[in-house]
Parts: sequence; C-alpha cells; structure tokens
Amino acid sequence: MTQSELADYLQAQRTAIDRALEQFLKVYGGQTQAVLKAMRYGLFPGGKRIRPILTLTAGEMFGAKQKELMPFACAVELIHAYSIIHDDLPAMDNDDLRRGEPTAHKVFGEGMALLAGDGLLTEAFHLISGPEVRRLPAELVLRLIHELSHAAGVAGLVGGQAVDLESENKDVDLATVEYIHVRKTGALILAALRIGAEIAGAKTGELRRLSKFGEYLGLAFQIADDVLDNIGETIAGEGGESGRNELKKATYPSVVGIVQATERLQELLKLCDRELVSFGESAAPLRAIAKHVIARAVQDKGRAAEESIS
Amino acid sequence: MTQSELADYLQAQRTAIDRALEQFLKVYGGQTQAVLKAMRYGLFPGGKRIRPILTLTAGEMFGAKQKELMPFACAVELIHAYSIIHDDLPAMDNDDLRRGEPTAHKVFGEGMALLAGDGLLTEAFHLISGPEVRRLPAELVLRLIHELSHAAGVAGLVGGQAVDLESENKDVDLATVEYIHVRKTGALILAALRIGAEIAGAKTGELRRLSKFGEYLGLAFQIADDVLDNIGETIAGEGGESGRNELKKATYPSVVGIVQATERLQELLKLCDRELVSFGESAAPLRAIAKHVIARAVQDKGRAAEESIS
Repeated sequence: MTQSELADYLQAQRTAIDRALEQFLKVYGGQTQAVLKAMRYGLFPGGKRIRPILTLTAGEMFGAKQKELMPFACAVELIHAYSIIHDDLPAMDNDDLRRGEPTAHKVFGEGMALLAGDGLLTEAFHLISGPEVRRLPAELVLRLIHELSHAAGVAGLVGGQAVDLESENKDVDLATVEYIHVRKTGALILAALRIGAEIAGAKTGELRRLSKFGEYLGLAFQIADDVLDNIGETIAGEGGESGRNELKKATYPSVVGIVQATERLQELLKLCDRELVSFGESAAPLRAIAKHVIARAVQDKGRAAEESIS
Repeated sequence: MTQSELADYLQAQRTAIDRALEQFLKVYGGQTQAVLKAMRYGLFPGGKRIRPILTLTAGEMFGAKQKELMPFACAVELIHAYSIIHDDLPAMDNDDLRRGEPTAHKVFGEGMALLAGDGLLTEAFHLISGPEVRRLPAELVLRLIHELSHAAGVAGLVGGQAVDLESENKDVDLATVEYIHVRKTGALILAALRIGAEIAGAKTGELRRLSKFGEYLGLAFQIADDVLDNIGETIAGEGGESGRNELKKATYPSVVGIVQATERLQELLKLCDRELVSFGESAAPLRAIAKHVIARAVQDKGRAAEESIS
C-alpha cells in the first residue's frame, strides 16, 4: 500500500465513521440540547479516528462486514472522545487547546464538559447493547462489552490516567511510563483491534498475533505522540503551541531522551511487522497504518533536527 | 410490614449488597490503588442503598433469586455512586460535605475524584457483562444493559444533570423541575425496579404497573429529598449543615412552596399504593419502602414546623 493509497483508505474509513456517528447522535434531541452540543463538540470534526479505523480494518481483514463492525467502532470513538474531554479538564491536564481549537470546557464550561464526557461514555455502552448490534450473537456482544469496559476501566484507561495523575511533577522511571502508556493508550487500541477481529470470528492463533501487534502499536502510538509533543514544545517554546498549562508529565522522551525514543519506535515497527507476516497481503492496511503512526514521529524528528540546525 | 420489620428488611438487604460490592471490588489491585481507594470512598459506607434494594425487592417479588439480581443491583449502586462523586465536584454542585463527611474531591483531589467517578461508571458495565451474569440469557442481559445505559445517559441521569446545571441561578417553572427530577433521579430508580422484575421474568402488565409505581416513587424520592434539604437549610441556616457552597437550585419546594410539596408527596404515595394493589401481599416490602421514603419528609416537615414554633 503506497502512502497515497493509505491516505485514500484512511479518508474513506473516516468518512464512513463520521457518517455513522452522525446517524447515531440523531436519535437524541429535546431539552438535552446543551449537553448533546458539548458531546458533538468533542466528537466533530474529530482527529484521525485511528481507533475506530483499527476496529474496521482488523474486522475487514478477517472478513467481517462494515455494518457489523460500525457500532463497536463508534463506541470505541465515543470512549476516546470522552477520555479526551475529561483529560483536558483543569483538574487533569488543564489543556486550553486541542488540535488548535479551544477545549470543551473552555467553550461550554467545566460542568457541561464533565457531563458531556459522562454522556459519551454512557452512550457508548448504550449503542453496543441495542438494536444496532442485533445481527450479532448476544453472547459475542456481551463478551465485547466486557472487553471494551475492561479496556476503559480501572485495568485500562481510568487506571492509566490515575497513575499518570499521581506521577505529575514527579521523577518517574521507564517502567512507570510504560505502565501508564499500556493502560492509558494501549488498552483501547488493543481492544479496538481485537473487537474487530472477534466480530469477524478470527481464530485463537490469529487473535493472539493481532493482540501482540496491538500491544506494540499502542505503545508506539503513545511514544510517537510524546516525541511529537516534545518536538512541538522545543520548536514553539514551553507550552506555546500545545495549549497545555505547564505540568511535568511522565513521557517516554523525557525519561530516555528523544534519540532512544525514536530508536524504540523503529524497533516497535519491526515487531509490528513481524506479527503481521502470517496474514500476508490481507494485512496491508494494518501494516501501512503502523508504519504511518510511527513514521510521522521519526520523520518529524528529522525535520525538527534540520530546523534547529538551519 | 411494620416499621421495625421494614428496618430489619432494609438492613438485611443492605448487608447483602455491601458484601457483594466488597466481593466485586476485590478483583482489582496493583498499581491502580489510588483510584480504587477513591472509588471505595464513594461506595462505602454508602447511604441507604435504596436503588439496589429496589432491584432486589422488585426481583424477589416476582420470584427471582438474590444471586441473579445482585450483579445488576451492584451496577445500579456503582452508577449512583459515580453520579454523586461527579455531582459534588466544584464544577457541578460544589459540595464539600456528603452525609457529614468530606466529599471525594475534598479527600482525593478533583482529578482523582473525576477518575473515580469514571471508573465506577465503567466498572458498572464491566460487572454486568462478565462471568457474574452468565447464568442469565445473554439476550436478556443485553436488554438490561441497554435499559441501564439509557437511564444513566443523555435521556436520563446525564440529561437531567445538564438541564439542572443550566437552570442554576435561574427562575424555573414546575415543568422544568419535574423534567430534571424525572431524569436525574427518576430514571435510575425506575430502571433499578424494572431490571429486577425483568430478571424475574415479570409479565408485560406486571412490568407496566411496576413502571408506573417506579415513576411515582422516583418523583416522590426527589421531592422528599428537596423538602428535607429545605428544612435542613431552614434549621441550620444557609448552607450550614448541607455543606453546599451556595447555589440556587431548581427544587420542588422552591417553586411551589413546602406545603404544596408535601401535599404532592402524599398524593404520590396514594398513586404508588394504587399501582401495587394487584400484587397483594408480595408487594408488602415495596409498599413499605414507598411509605418510608415519603413519610420521612412529611414527618420531618411536621417536626421542623414544631421546632420553629417552639
């Protein structure tokens, strides 16, 4: 898959996901407009939609139809959107900007942003327990709800955020950084992939290899983000572009340095590729996504180095 | 059922629920201790456990076993505990005290309280999609998850909280107050009751009558709370005992006055009783609970009036 083929592929998936999210939100209305508006703000225009794309991509690789995968893909994105709104709150990361736009609590106030996050999280579970998933066996759906809530709960997202919060302004070791990453970012990425494959009826061995791939990808994803943040801050000056009201966070580059972080990224890309070998050509999109996720940080690092020289 | 029989009954149910909640939380551990501690703080010692008791009581009335009902009863309480922690946050009601003790964010900080709420909500869905519910048909469990997430989401709890938040420091009419109550308090009480009955396999007509009962009870529950708050504030002085950092809230007594509010409570008790008639003696616990919920406010109102006279 060439870079331009990947771009088209990602764009097509993103469009399908956005349409499904719109459709899903249409069922609400009436006097709850304010909180829905805040929820929509957290969802649209949205970022890269990488998590729901992973659900679609993994599911389609094993032969599932988009229609079967979509409610779960959307639920994954609703959970991601909730986690971003809550994470941006003053009590957490205290971010004023997200992708160059004011964060939800800056626009709607802290209380409404809190409720919007609560709403997104709750509606994720509402979506994957209702009519949209009726065509799947109920036992399978229950198992997937269990897996998704595991990834989002104390053993995943919430637990990772909690340790991250405790680590603020402290010197942390690499084990703690990886502990946070595996839960805060890795768990949902892993669940997104696995859920797609499980809907498709992937075999145990296939699921095992996909899970290893997901673990490497999740870690790479967070390290890449940290590397890009680190470069952004280096270029723009402390907290300038990032909109973060300064906090010392536990990041990979801050513990091992940027050079070792990018080396680790390249190592993770190799590990990702290795787990996909047995899937042959059907894994082309996943392979391209992994490369894309990792390359953006490694390339930007090169560019940043050039800029700082010139 | 006499008052003392009811007290024993409620105590026995409460003990069983507390034991089940303890058991459930035991599966977690490791490095996520801080957030678990905050979650536990929101759960124990807890209040009256009225919502999970309603699940047990409604289910047992139609012949379900406690063991089948308990995961859902606990999930209802986890959701209630999450809603309290988030509702107490400075961005919402800004309460420093809850049942005479410091609120979660006062003890653990705002960020950890936020995460504890997120954790409780997420773990509610984790609990009712896992091994604990395997003995129930998967289709039924999915339907119950859908119903509970509906009650907790934009159409229920979150939506009610949002309108409540928007109504702060505004003059609101009775329709808005009831709109808020139905969603913020009523929806979860109704779902708690219905879920119990559905697990027991209650028939359509039975479920319809129980639902009417639940709607009246939910409204009565919130009006009673408002009446008691109002008396508390009248006796203790503005915000003294309640620990609330002053906000004008949309309450039933503030709109129609305390006399009409207690009249409405007595009317609701009659409506509750009427819906239970056809269930005969098996509805004795529900009947006693409704009377108890309503009488505490009506009696306290009498006592408060006496105190203010003497």
